Amino acid sequence: MLKVYIATGNRHKVEEISRILREYDILLEGIKSPKLEIQSENLEDIAVFAVKNLKTDLRPVIVEDAGLFIYALNGFPGPYSSYVYKTIGIEGILRLMENENNRRAYFLSTIALKNKKEDIKVFIGKVEGYISKSPKGTWGFGFDPIFIPIGENRTFAEMTIEEKNKYSHRAKAAKKLAEWLLKNI
Amino acid sequence: MLKVYIATGNRHKVEEISRILREYDILLEGIKSPKLEIQSENLEDIAVFAVKNLKTDLRPVIVEDAGLFIYALNGFPGPYSSYVYKTIGIEGILRLMENENNRRAYFLSTIALKNKKEDIKVFIGKVEGYISKSPKGTWGFGFDPIFIPIGENRTFAEMTIEEKNKYSHRAKAAKKLAEWLLKNI
Repeated sequence: MLKVYIATGNRHKVEEISRILREYDILLEGIKSPKLEIQSENLEDIAVFAVKNLKTDLRPVIVEDAGLFIYALNGFPGPYSSYVYKTIGIEGILRLMENENNRRAYFLSTIALKNKKEDIKVFIGKVEGYISKSPKGTWGFGFDPIFIPIGENRTFAEMTIEEKNKYSHRAKAAKKLAEWLLKNI
Repeated sequence: MLKVYIATGNRHKVEEISRILREYDILLEGIKSPKLEIQSENLEDIAVFAVKNLKTDLRPVIVEDAGLFIYALNGFPGPYSSYVYKTIGIEGILRLMENENNRRAYFLSTIALKNKKEDIKVFIGKVEGYISKSPKGTWGFGFDPIFIPIGENRTFAEMTIEEKNKYSHRAKAAKKLAEWLLKNI
């Protein structure tokens, strides 16, 4: 059975991606290799730099970087979503969006893969949606309680992993990864 | 005359630091060497990594990294101040601070120096103050219009460079740099 390693300390990411990979008979294993993340407004640059500089010999290995981009806030919090979540949190985002009619936003996920030849491949997933007026739900992590994907009336945090994976940026990137792996490894 | 190079695209930084260094008969010259900035909550880590990875042979060379840390916002925007300034801006910070009584904040500056022996030295400057209720002044850059240092009733943006340099984080770090250079180079 094909096995892929992911360098992350976020168990939610491991769960979401492994559910997708399992459908392709690919196993995902989390490893705690420290990641060097650069400052960039481009998630792809961050993920590629991180996977290139991982200090592990395990292959194939992936890094996933994601962000919430809010149109009315010029893309904020974008690549710094986890720092923004830890500091001003959901409450801060909702305060910035008070009286804002344009609530459109998207989540972006970038998976960077390093294979045995040390080649780097990048897989991107995106989901468009909007920022809810108040937080709802307890599943997921980060800004899931205030993000409603288009075509739904529930936030990501009101969905099980299976339901979230029907829409999510991370699931879309993971599917592209799985399809590439089955063809090329 | 001793000359130091600074890798930055920010002319305000060059001006503020060069005014200080000139008092010590040290010349500062800006160079446009691309900087690799990592994501970290520690400015020192960011500056040290950046100066180590500069692609220039000029020495001694410095990198300066600064941030505004607001207590009530758990340190936000901190190391990501320039990204936050570009996206949600001063208006966003003031909105997050609406009805907040604890307006205390500080600016931190970290200068990392690489000398001819490739040794790295770090100089830190800090200024405590508070976030004003509304923006005032047109001097300076970034969040200067909403930061009032302790002992003043004007924002940094209401001060000339000379006045700002009496208080500023960047001036304090630059003075430490100058004193170290005069003793060691």
